[in-house]
Amino acid sequence: MLREKEKSTPSDTTTPAVILVDPQMGENIGACARAMLNFDLTDLRLVNPRDGWPNQRAIDMAVGAFDKMPEPRLFETLDQAIANCHFTLATTARTRDMVKPVFTPKAAARELTARAHQSQKTALIFGAERTGLHNKDAALCSGLITIPTNPDFSSLNLGQAVLLMAYELHQQSGTETLDVTLPTGDSAPVEQARLQEFFERLETELENGHFFRSPELKPGMVNNIRSMFTRSDLTDQEVRTLHGVISALIGNKAGK
Amino acid sequence: MLREKEKSTPSDTTTPAVILVDPQMGENIGACARAMLNFDLTDLRLVNPRDGWPNQRAIDMAVGAFDKMPEPRLFETLDQAIANCHFTLATTARTRDMVKPVFTPKAAARELTARAHQSQKTALIFGAERTGLHNKDAALCSGLITIPTNPDFSSLNLGQAVLLMAYELHQQSGTETLDVTLPTGDSAPVEQARLQEFFERLETELENGHFFRSPELKPGMVNNIRSMFTRSDLTDQEVRTLHGVISALIGNKAGK
Repeated sequence: MLREKEKSTPSDTTTPAVILVDPQMGENIGACARAMLNFDLTDLRLVNPRDGWPNQRAIDMAVGAFDKMPEPRLFETLDQAIANCHFTLATTARTRDMVKPVFTPKAAARELTARAHQSQKTALIFGAERTGLHNKDAALCSGLITIPTNPDFSSLNLGQAVLLMAYELHQQSGTETLDVTLPTGDSAPVEQARLQEFFERLETELENGHFFRSPELKPGMVNNIRSMFTRSDLTDQEVRTLHGVISALIGNKAGK
Repeated sequence: MLREKEKSTPSDTTTPAVILVDPQMGENIGACARAMLNFDLTDLRLVNPRDGWPNQRAIDMAVGAFDKMPEPRLFETLDQAIANCHFTLATTARTRDMVKPVFTPKAAARELTARAHQSQKTALIFGAERTGLHNKDAALCSGLITIPTNPDFSSLNLGQAVLLMAYELHQQSGTETLDVTLPTGDSAPVEQARLQEFFERLETELENGHFFRSPELKPGMVNNIRSMFTRSDLTDQEVRTLHGVISALIGNKAGK
């Protein structure tokens, strides 16, 4: 059973975490670590790696990268891995039936860099080698990244996708300003763990209210609802307000 | 003894040739071919590959790329490989004692693209895995490219260097895409009148649920709630879903 390792170092908000979800081959994890360190990224998080961790093939392939970065952290699920993040983008080859902003690599790098300058912890999320990211995991992300490739030969390997994003981030390392800003006053962006709690509560209450017409339809409906909120860049205060909204609505009928 | 293969197709001047000088591992040649085709480059030239050509490991690593591009051409020396070119750039990690322009990857991609538009045949040249390019070969090139990396961990593998240059070239190709898009499938953006109706219903139900602590606080609270939704670019379908959410939540307590 995997368990998050305790780390003594505080979370580094200056560069994005790289999160590999269900990675299969150790070689690919090693290639990702090498590509990350080539461009100064060091916060690697692994969700449920097929061949376990640590992995000798990953270490061989990384040609020393693991010696120069903090130990990768292990998680069982993506929502645990992004718990301390404020803004997350997932690379994806397919368009999804989710309403979520899609960034080019360069625009994504700009956005992630600008948010890091505002002390937001950000993450880049990559799915498994063959299957990519499951919809339930994509639904948790603030937005998507599509790397424009030759449509007749579009499949990048995992290490190469990580390399391109790391390269684009490195290109941004001067000072950048956002094209679009979202002033939030004293309110801070919500930590994803708080957002997960909100989702769980909302979905429990919807279940109680017979919102989900059938068990088969539920996952898709849940993803659609989550996407409305994940793409809004909610603040901490707003999520508290949403809890109040739920309380008011479920208490409503009772009060009559 | 290697010999240039005769090819019936004329030389393609629209994109650069990729020339690998003294490549060692077949796997790396395959990774280069895959990376090239990902970004629409197809003119691969090999100078004196250590393990000969064709090479099964290269073919395995290319996951089908060689089937979709002209056969790589073989040469004994770099000067033969660049014989039909007008402008050549070599990637290099080291500075050289040569007076030669050094390009960033992006500037190199711009230069190569501009020259291709003038019908110049161009080439990107990559040295061997460990040793890089010999000075005698670097001396043959019009200029150098240095990929900016972490100075403490700067070594890119061959396939990754090719990938980055192919990506930057692809970025230069004609049509610009929007930096950020929001695909909504069949769903149209909601008419604001429908959104207002939703707000009015939500706020009536919140009033019934004693959500607004005082009449003075209400306008500010209403504005804050509306802002969460207005900035999400909601679709028509999503607003219908949100109505269902309200119905489920207010019906919830009654059902118990």
